[in-house]
Amino acid sequence: MAPIKPRIPPGTRDFTALEVRQRAWVIDRIRGVFERFGFEPIETPTLEFFETLKGKLGEEGEQLIFKVLRRGTALEDLRLGRVAAVTVSDYDEVVDYALPYDLTVPFSRFLAMHPDQPLPFKRYQIQRVWRADKPQRGRYREFCQCDVDVAGTSSMLADAEVIAVTIEALRDLGFRDFHTRIGHRKIFDGLVESAGGAEHFRALCTAVDKLDKIGLDGVREEIAQRGVPAQVGDALLARITREGPAEELLGEMERTLAGTRQGIAGVSEMRELLALLAAQGVPAGHVRFDPGLARGLDYYTGPVYESVVTRPAIGSLSGGGRYDELIGRFTGTPLPATGTSLGLERIIDVMRELEMLPARPGATEVLVTIFDAASQAAALGLASELRRAGFRTEVPLKPVKGLKPQIAYASEKGIPLLGILGPDEIAAGTVTLRAGPGNQRRVPRDQVITEVRAFLAAIRPE
Amino acid sequence: MAPIKPRIPPGTRDFTALEVRQRAWVIDRIRGVFERFGFEPIETPTLEFFETLKGKLGEEGEQLIFKVLRRGTALEDLRLGRVAAVTVSDYDEVVDYALPYDLTVPFSRFLAMHPDQPLPFKRYQIQRVWRADKPQRGRYREFCQCDVDVAGTSSMLADAEVIAVTIEALRDLGFRDFHTRIGHRKIFDGLVESAGGAEHFRALCTAVDKLDKIGLDGVREEIAQRGVPAQVGDALLARITREGPAEELLGEMERTLAGTRQGIAGVSEMRELLALLAAQGVPAGHVRFDPGLARGLDYYTGPVYESVVTRPAIGSLSGGGRYDELIGRFTGTPLPATGTSLGLERIIDVMRELEMLPARPGATEVLVTIFDAASQAAALGLASELRRAGFRTEVPLKPVKGLKPQIAYASEKGIPLLGILGPDEIAAGTVTLRAGPGNQRRVPRDQVITEVRAFLAAIRPE
Repeated sequence: MAPIKPRIPPGTRDFTALEVRQRAWVIDRIRGVFERFGFEPIETPTLEFFETLKGKLGEEGEQLIFKVLRRGTALEDLRLGRVAAVTVSDYDEVVDYALPYDLTVPFSRFLAMHPDQPLPFKRYQIQRVWRADKPQRGRYREFCQCDVDVAGTSSMLADAEVIAVTIEALRDLGFRDFHTRIGHRKIFDGLVESAGGAEHFRALCTAVDKLDKIGLDGVREEIAQRGVPAQVGDALLARITREGPAEELLGEMERTLAGTRQGIAGVSEMRELLALLAAQGVPAGHVRFDPGLARGLDYYTGPVYESVVTRPAIGSLSGGGRYDELIGRFTGTPLPATGTSLGLERIIDVMRELEMLPARPGATEVLVTIFDAASQAAALGLASELRRAGFRTEVPLKPVKGLKPQIAYASEKGIPLLGILGPDEIAAGTVTLRAGPGNQRRVPRDQVITEVRAFLAAIRPE
Repeated sequence: MAPIKPRIPPGTRDFTALEVRQRAWVIDRIRGVFERFGFEPIETPTLEFFETLKGKLGEEGEQLIFKVLRRGTALEDLRLGRVAAVTVSDYDEVVDYALPYDLTVPFSRFLAMHPDQPLPFKRYQIQRVWRADKPQRGRYREFCQCDVDVAGTSSMLADAEVIAVTIEALRDLGFRDFHTRIGHRKIFDGLVESAGGAEHFRALCTAVDKLDKIGLDGVREEIAQRGVPAQVGDALLARITREGPAEELLGEMERTLAGTRQGIAGVSEMRELLALLAAQGVPAGHVRFDPGLARGLDYYTGPVYESVVTRPAIGSLSGGGRYDELIGRFTGTPLPATGTSLGLERIIDVMRELEMLPARPGATEVLVTIFDAASQAAALGLASELRRAGFRTEVPLKPVKGLKPQIAYASEKGIPLLGILGPDEIAAGTVTLRAGPGNQRRVPRDQVITEVRAFLAAIRPE
């Protein structure tokens, strides 16, 4: 049989040992922060009904959903030659499952199916999601999101906590040079209204969302292209690009937004939110009020927020906001909620670039060499003992001749310590521990645990 | 808009906080054992090319593979009304991806794409897999496997290590009453040959594999139904159901198998394997030589093994064996390998039934109450301080009146300790810690970390 060409779909990745361990290290830290804030983990299936996911993301997003074939359908019949063709009336029968596009929709569906959760329900969820997007640098078709949400309260306490936990997670990973931009949909709506652009809300929202990417002139052009009068666009842009201390800006907004439908409520919530962040000791340098932040998704209804590193210029590491109406689409009863998603892939890409990842987490510590067939049993016994004491320990799993290939294997794999148990050592009741040429010592067999610990501590002081 | 009925596909599951934490606890222990043996983690995509997976499992297995639609295909055109029908010539264009059925095939594909791994390559992999099987008790369409494999050596050292790591993982989880049955394909082949059944090998293998499920009479019946002469079946069954100490059985086998194609090589490897297990200190009670164990899959070529708990009768918790030819199907060059899969779902089902799971791992430890708007900032500050000290800490995220609803929330969520910071406490520079009615104490604000630690230790001595 001809070999099968080994390949994986574009936008997906294999992870080697070092990558898995670095990812696990990052995830464990994020999880640790989520748990210290009392968030609780849930997990949802990789297969959701297509019906659950569709109609939440707009036509463009919906095209990015990976769809899964129903078993034993018209299409399977087609493959097996049982039918000649599949027509559109078969479609719903052919496709029933799909892979989640994000974790917010599955969380909303989860809440609808688990109405007995004590409210407010604080959940975190760290799972893979899928988007049939065009793969490019930093954009994958399969990637991991770390979500944290609070459902069941419209208090700004919840928004403040979600922002605080995000900032704390990034700090805990070692990030210092970042800030979280905070906007408010009600303020943004009010600014659009006060600029005379209420009827162009969608167009303005979409254009302004690209400010970071295409700059002020680009946004102006896009606004014009979308048929919004120039003076409306200019008025809005002037309002949202004002800079200054939050309190000063909010004072200004209060005057600008007087008479708008929701603007004043937004200003008041934003003031409360900033005060709550300060009360929790969130460093002021990490928080920035940004009246122009609207974020693309339709379903946001209150504060919206995203975290940005100053360098490298890679876009946001996290993004989220309040969505008080989404969950109600499953239950019929609105349940207010707010939450954010930390993008694991971007976080790791940035940490790799800035050399913030641990170099060699969790790799093997000791290789017990096998000298010959006669001493093999003694070597296996020593390895078992070291493992029971908690050391990550290997023995060669291939018959080898002499020490050299074993030293080479250890060096290739970066195993720092060799435990050598040859006939001399066995006769004398000792083990030779070797951390490198010239750095080796015979130790009594019955003190090997203590000695290995000391050796490893000397090699890698922590 | 009418609400969308919230539901998930049959055979998939949502996991609540307790379930996620119990699963994580089990996975962490298994991972810890894998790592102490020096196995290295890899991860592979959820989407593989259908071509990679097909042709490995037989027609029956292949039907269980979930297939994923290619984007922008004839089927999408069908949905959008661009074409009237999809015919069989479109099929390969419609389906290109699929969800992995197991982790062995992706591992083989991984090795073919990463030929630079130092050999022997010891990998572990803990991921979800999917089978479009009929869901029933203990059988899911989406489930987690914990695989451990060694590739690149045909030494029995590798088989012994895979069996040892499996037994150690089960022991580490608290299992005592289990054993690992070990057979050998070469011995089984030899027994079939010596019973005169070489031409009926497939039929005999499939029938004998059901011995546990349908008993001796059932197997006899199935053998007859498959057209194998009764004296052949009886001769084989007599040979494989012999019981006794392994050394005695192997001595007998040696005589029975003299002259068969591979039987003697199998006996010799089995002797070596058992000696290596003893040398590593694997308790003899956990190991049982079973000449009748063949296991269903085609690709096994050497030792095969599975672990069984005595109670409850749920089938095997792990299963695996040596497969020296599978990887070569991707590379064209055979690469010997051996490995096993721990079935996480069954392990957890058994542990739940036997009450072996931790009752409340990782849940919130302290609720800092909010007394009123004036003391809210102080409460948030205290919560931040407790979190920084490592305590899992919540504050109410909904405005509440008085202590009662907060005590109720803590009790509903099983939070053991309340930190109360009302106006009196703030004025006096204290915090009231309350672990239950009558078990509360005012402590100085600046000693709160020490006091919380002491309270928690007293509540849950570990």
